[in-house]
Amino acid sequence: MEFAEVESDPGTVRPGGRTARVRAAVLRAAADVLAEQGFAHLDLADVARRAEVGKTTVYRRWGTATGLVTDLLLDMAEQSVPRTETGSLLGDLRANARLVQRTLADPRQGALFKAVIAAATCDPKAAQALHGFYTVRVEEWAPCVEQAAARGEVPEGTDPHEVIRAASAPLYHRLLTTALPLDEAAADRAATAAATAARAGAYVREP
Amino acid sequence: MEFAEVESDPGTVRPGGRTARVRAAVLRAAADVLAEQGFAHLDLADVARRAEVGKTTVYRRWGTATGLVTDLLLDMAEQSVPRTETGSLLGDLRANARLVQRTLADPRQGALFKAVIAAATCDPKAAQALHGFYTVRVEEWAPCVEQAAARGEVPEGTDPHEVIRAASAPLYHRLLTTALPLDEAAADRAATAAATAARAGAYVREP
Repeated sequence: MEFAEVESDPGTVRPGGRTARVRAAVLRAAADVLAEQGFAHLDLADVARRAEVGKTTVYRRWGTATGLVTDLLLDMAEQSVPRTETGSLLGDLRANARLVQRTLADPRQGALFKAVIAAATCDPKAAQALHGFYTVRVEEWAPCVEQAAARGEVPEGTDPHEVIRAASAPLYHRLLTTALPLDEAAADRAATAAATAARAGAYVREP
Repeated sequence: MEFAEVESDPGTVRPGGRTARVRAAVLRAAADVLAEQGFAHLDLADVARRAEVGKTTVYRRWGTATGLVTDLLLDMAEQSVPRTETGSLLGDLRANARLVQRTLADPRQGALFKAVIAAATCDPKAAQALHGFYTVRVEEWAPCVEQAAARGEVPEGTDPHEVIRAASAPLYHRLLTTALPLDEAAADRAATAAATAARAGAYVREP
């Protein structure tokens, strides 16, 4: 899953000892349940069974469904893929928007993102973890706007975080509020709009 | 609640006979539960009790929690407020973005919108109803882009729906993925960015 916003599917086995393997199996199972059935059906006993891990271990280590979602989002943030550098703001934002689009258009990842966003709407701790994940993603890409400012592509004082969020906001909005296809054209349109508005000074911080 | 995207709180009593009054009371109660506790806790018996309506009536007429959410979104679409005309694309988009921002920043409306978006992520019928609501809102505002095209403010072939969605997407994205304030500055920034990108041709339909 080299195309997605996160290095691999949550819970993919990575190097580490038994504890790491248990965590990977449990988070993979939690992500499966979230993608297939949503947050409302995330049950620790079910996750333990799917992960082939003792129920007691899962309850002791994660405690609640919220605990699982929080750790899953932490894992996703840890696996956050490095940004692409293309040499232009438009190129960089397009790379970012296409990455987000491919992630959200992927059936499993799209369903998983919908589920964690839904979890965040009804659970303050899940919300905090979700905000943390997006902070990591936005900070990863923010330097492309700083570089554009250094090249004189965007005005001084442009808020890098606002520009990065602008490039993916239309894709999340499309996913959550419409039945329209989440295609590459949508990604490119979002990137072009964000780059155009940024060059025109729309994201300059207020004094 | 003259400021919100919908004419009044869902379920506010409007003219009509007993059936209309029952519907208003039930939808008001459903909106209360959604705003206070989220979709996962929407229980028909609880809604009937809060609405002071017979349980049998609620089960017979709405059937399920999904049935309630679907009818609530239909009611919200029916009460959809007319757009503001300011004479310029930027003015119109700013009016639209500020309306969305005030709606989402309102504690009850914001929580209600989060709840119906969450419901849509895990329920296809609720999703269809949510998409229907946004189709009504986008179509209400689309003529402001058509008028801008007629005035020569945006290129011919500009997709009005994409422009309208672009003006509110950053606000929904901010609400759902960050803990940042949903203030008027955020609305104005979203409107300016959408108007700037539209004028530059970012939303011209592909051939």
